[in-house]
Amino acid sequence: MEKLQVDNALIKQFRNWFSQNETEILREQLLNMYPQDIAMVIDRLENDEARIVMNALDKIAVVKVLVEMDEQTRESFLSTYSPFEIANEFLENMDSDDAAYVLNHFPNSVKEEVIGQLQDIEYASSLLNLISYEEETAGSLMAVELVKANLNWTVKQCIEEIRTQAENVDSIYVVYVIDDMERLVGIITLKNLILAEPKAQLADVYNKTVISVSTSTKIIEVANTTKKYDLVVLPVVDPLGRLVGRITVDDVVDLIKEEADEDYQLMSGITADVDATDKVWVLSRARLPWLLIGLLGGIASSRILGVYENQIMIHPEMAFFIPLIAAMGGNVGVQSSAIVVQGLANDTLGTKNIGQKILKEIRVALINGIICSSLILAYNLALYHSCELAITVSIALITVIIFASIFGTFIPMFLNQIKIDPAIATGPFITTSNDLLGIVIYFSVGRMLYTTL
Amino acid sequence: MEKLQVDNALIKQFRNWFSQNETEILREQLLNMYPQDIAMVIDRLENDEARIVMNALDKIAVVKVLVEMDEQTRESFLSTYSPFEIANEFLENMDSDDAAYVLNHFPNSVKEEVIGQLQDIEYASSLLNLISYEEETAGSLMAVELVKANLNWTVKQCIEEIRTQAENVDSIYVVYVIDDMERLVGIITLKNLILAEPKAQLADVYNKTVISVSTSTKIIEVANTTKKYDLVVLPVVDPLGRLVGRITVDDVVDLIKEEADEDYQLMSGITADVDATDKVWVLSRARLPWLLIGLLGGIASSRILGVYENQIMIHPEMAFFIPLIAAMGGNVGVQSSAIVVQGLANDTLGTKNIGQKILKEIRVALINGIICSSLILAYNLALYHSCELAITVSIALITVIIFASIFGTFIPMFLNQIKIDPAIATGPFITTSNDLLGIVIYFSVGRMLYTTL
Repeated sequence: MEKLQVDNALIKQFRNWFSQNETEILREQLLNMYPQDIAMVIDRLENDEARIVMNALDKIAVVKVLVEMDEQTRESFLSTYSPFEIANEFLENMDSDDAAYVLNHFPNSVKEEVIGQLQDIEYASSLLNLISYEEETAGSLMAVELVKANLNWTVKQCIEEIRTQAENVDSIYVVYVIDDMERLVGIITLKNLILAEPKAQLADVYNKTVISVSTSTKIIEVANTTKKYDLVVLPVVDPLGRLVGRITVDDVVDLIKEEADEDYQLMSGITADVDATDKVWVLSRARLPWLLIGLLGGIASSRILGVYENQIMIHPEMAFFIPLIAAMGGNVGVQSSAIVVQGLANDTLGTKNIGQKILKEIRVALINGIICSSLILAYNLALYHSCELAITVSIALITVIIFASIFGTFIPMFLNQIKIDPAIATGPFITTSNDLLGIVIYFSVGRMLYTTL
Repeated sequence: MEKLQVDNALIKQFRNWFSQNETEILREQLLNMYPQDIAMVIDRLENDEARIVMNALDKIAVVKVLVEMDEQTRESFLSTYSPFEIANEFLENMDSDDAAYVLNHFPNSVKEEVIGQLQDIEYASSLLNLISYEEETAGSLMAVELVKANLNWTVKQCIEEIRTQAENVDSIYVVYVIDDMERLVGIITLKNLILAEPKAQLADVYNKTVISVSTSTKIIEVANTTKKYDLVVLPVVDPLGRLVGRITVDDVVDLIKEEADEDYQLMSGITADVDATDKVWVLSRARLPWLLIGLLGGIASSRILGVYENQIMIHPEMAFFIPLIAAMGGNVGVQSSAIVVQGLANDTLGTKNIGQKILKEIRVALINGIICSSLILAYNLALYHSCELAITVSIALITVIIFASIFGTFIPMFLNQIKIDPAIATGPFITTSNDLLGIVIYFSVGRMLYTTL
């Protein structure tokens, strides 16, 4: 099987097969493609064309492709099916976590209608359970399919159980060992099962060191735990310690990437999860909020500068350094907040000792402030500018750098303490507020110095 | 085993055990801790204390802890050992990818000296091979330990081979199937091995669909492939298609997180990989380069504004909107570049059709530009400001938004084409250049309008 480039040529090829009714060739081609690539093809096809492709796939492949499709494509594709068909042709064959994922893109009423149509009642009740977990928790991310074995079994019994359970579970990495109360007590890897004597007791060969999370654990902690302990699969237990599901690393990888992309976009002033292939108005809408905040910040700056109109008229050279002061305040603020936001997200930064952290920030700011201020002082004195201006710019610059550092550190930590995502305090927010701060400091210092010197 | 909080209390506890020579209690405690947590404890201890902890661990645990330590702690800890000890007490027991990782933090001469001391010649030659791969390629990330089976074997033979090979391989997820030339032809999962008849031929039960990368594949592509196809382990082949190693998902998770953190920091104007716990001067140094660029940008702005000194003296109100114009240019530029940089990193954006993408960007910019310009026009006309100023600000604003969008899209795409990481073109770089651009546009428009109106 070759890795395939899903490009215009391939789509054209597919359309040729459709128009010439080449079902056999199509089927052959699909057999040699990964679900992810088939999904990418379908993302570029019309609904009726997508149906031809899906009909050429077997049941298992159909649901794998469905899960990998773009959200919009899937929604549009499924809209041509009845709730009964969605339930029994698609959901029925999916892993429960995938089914919950697909369901969660439907409105609430549709969700329950679809589940109600499932003929496998036990599965339906699992799904109802899964979609009831709060968003962003381990419960909402887990699959209920897993292989478990009782502590009192032998290795042979355990392997036989795998044979019977294996059909339902796509990929098995470990077998979970439970006690008579269904409580998770340990794991045994398939490797160790193969290596163990068939007659050995599980109790003698299983591994008691198992890391688990609870259904209510936040997904950011799920991600951090998986990453820290190099896990491939993470068991989920209920409040009584009973094994209820598992989260596989592929979902965690997606999670980590999504969180990172979201933070990156927030930092760059984009509010919604968009990418370059989205429609023009979607892109515009995602960007507008921060632009409007920037606009408000700009208007506020203009009001502040209005106060200093006379000063600007008498000393127009003061206006020359407005961009420098504003930009440096913004840059320093963004740098400080980025480090804090990242530290909070990666859990490398304690939430205690805010005071101590700000003190450290001030020392960093002092070093950089002194360097930058000295450089600009030397520049201004060496050039034609007045001594007043040179001193004003340098004093204002170092003050702005220190204040921007403090704000950049304090605001995300404060937001985090009052349970607001600190990432929204980065980018345009910090830039805008530091612009304002910078201008006030600059002109206050200027007014003082020009009258005293 | 409980998840442990590594805090001051625990460190104090450890120090108590050290001072009272409580080796047994220490050993007991360590048996109940994960290597990751032990490493976190050691990160906070002195070298001689660390040695006590390491001596209380068994061989396998020692190397696991060593790999998980902070880079600086590990360097300082290993500096108390001779190359011979490093080779045969530590490297010897490590997986080859971990050994290569640790080695790569040494200077080149030390690397080779340490490898030269290894008593296992075959392993030494594997390591020499691994450290020779270019950084940021699959070869530099892979481990050579893996379980492979010949296509002509039976299932039973394959399981026996696992028994003999398993000792060297930490976690086995799949067995790689190779032909007589050592070329990778497929895989078989442990699950399917357990389910298959022992007498069956591997050739009849193995899975031909295997995704692999080559030793020279860039790690960003390794990450994207693993993520896209939901892989737990990715085989690596040499240019002749022969199986030479494997990359496990835990390394890919670390990779994805590191790349994301790096992009986030670049976006926020921090050049080196730092976190909030680093020393003051390390933090200062990481931030200074972009601040100096910002300073240069500010000086350039002041020179440009100097050209318009007379205009500012006559119309000081023009200075009021300098921050607005500069900030909006910066914001729009960052937004545009962020989407492009992310699209390039996630491979969701083709590198073709730059023209088409810029055209789309212009349409997005037009929508947002018209909205923002209209709002500021209404504000300025409604308030006391002159009609000339109102029109100047609005025309300049929409022009800046459009130009900043084009630059923000074009620059990262251009950098990507000439093989420079486009992420460096975000953040302060875009902000600074768009500040300049904005001021030039604003005052050019102003000069024109004030003389014509």
